[in-house]
Amino acid sequence: MGSSSAPWKQLLLSSIEANSHLKHHSYFQLATVSSNNRPSNRTVVFRGFQDDGDKILINTDTRTRKINDLKHCPFTEICWYFMESWEQFRISGVVDVIDGTTPDPLKLEQREKSWFASSLRSRVQYVGASPGLPAVASEQSSQSPSLDPSIGPVAAFCLLLFDPHQVDYLNLKSNERLVFTSIASDSGKKLWTSQKVNP
Amino acid sequence: MGSSSAPWKQLLLSSIEANSHLKHHSYFQLATVSSNNRPSNRTVVFRGFQDDGDKILINTDTRTRKINDLKHCPFTEICWYFMESWEQFRISGVVDVIDGTTPDPLKLEQREKSWFASSLRSRVQYVGASPGLPAVASEQSSQSPSLDPSIGPVAAFCLLLFDPHQVDYLNLKSNERLVFTSIASDSGKKLWTSQKVNP
Repeated sequence: MGSSSAPWKQLLLSSIEANSHLKHHSYFQLATVSSNNRPSNRTVVFRGFQDDGDKILINTDTRTRKINDLKHCPFTEICWYFMESWEQFRISGVVDVIDGTTPDPLKLEQREKSWFASSLRSRVQYVGASPGLPAVASEQSSQSPSLDPSIGPVAAFCLLLFDPHQVDYLNLKSNERLVFTSIASDSGKKLWTSQKVNP
Repeated sequence: MGSSSAPWKQLLLSSIEANSHLKHHSYFQLATVSSNNRPSNRTVVFRGFQDDGDKILINTDTRTRKINDLKHCPFTEICWYFMESWEQFRISGVVDVIDGTTPDPLKLEQREKSWFASSLRSRVQYVGASPGLPAVASEQSSQSPSLDPSIGPVAAFCLLLFDPHQVDYLNLKSNERLVFTSIASDSGKKLWTSQKVNP
């Protein structure tokens, strides 16, 4: 009560810290609903929180199917399981898709920040062959594309800004489960409540 | 060609083997669509394949929300990421929900087999407090429920039989991606084709 920070955020940061020695501990699964109303699920990488808030940053390629999914249905659920500490976070919320055509200058600024925050190796993927399309043998054998490190975000680079609405936390060691739910206050700020539920 | 086994199955079994020293390597994420048409995502445990086929077995509790999701929409997508070998399997398909009210005796037999194949510790969970409901303090402090090891599946025990239709395999070490797609043959048997696509 009284804290401006989301109460589950410290729990998540502690889990990230406790599992940081494990490879790929920052990978989680993002579920979406496709335009045929069937679920899709894939691994993506946690790129941190936006500023001091509770919105989660994810980088992706505008040419992937998840972009169509998110245009059809912006509601998503993250499932993040931590192997070392036996903890699961199920985070449901809404995704804002930010590509180069976004009119909002502040969002474009955040997209550029995320672009330069990722490694050159990551950035190069966005000038490579279109993900999911049939692989052409000649492209496989040709040399990898190169990219000027000073160049800004390319057209295929897309930032997903995930705004959490509910967090379902399960600890399999202590066998405890907590559900955090947000409501919008009159000022538009999220207010979080939590409830202990059966695991 | 000519093999009766699904071509991706050996790939998956090899990944399981290569990651078997890791804790929880048999955990994957199952995405469903809820009745409000939003996605849900949670970690579940791989309980093997049914007989010699390609159908995947998952145990769950009839009192969890995923059962309502599956009645609303039987289509699901598994995302299984292997940390050690940097491999991802996205498996989409249809789930058959098998609880004690299922009329088919062969399915009931499979459910019983899955019940006795799980540990007593796992089975005891199905006679515990209803998952997701507000925790009552008195239930928390009371002793754990006990269960006769010879007793058959209780009402809350539910078997999910997952029938894969498509498998999207990604190897982040070799940077290769293969999509396996099934079509039903005239005899009703699945025929699998595969295509190399851009990662």
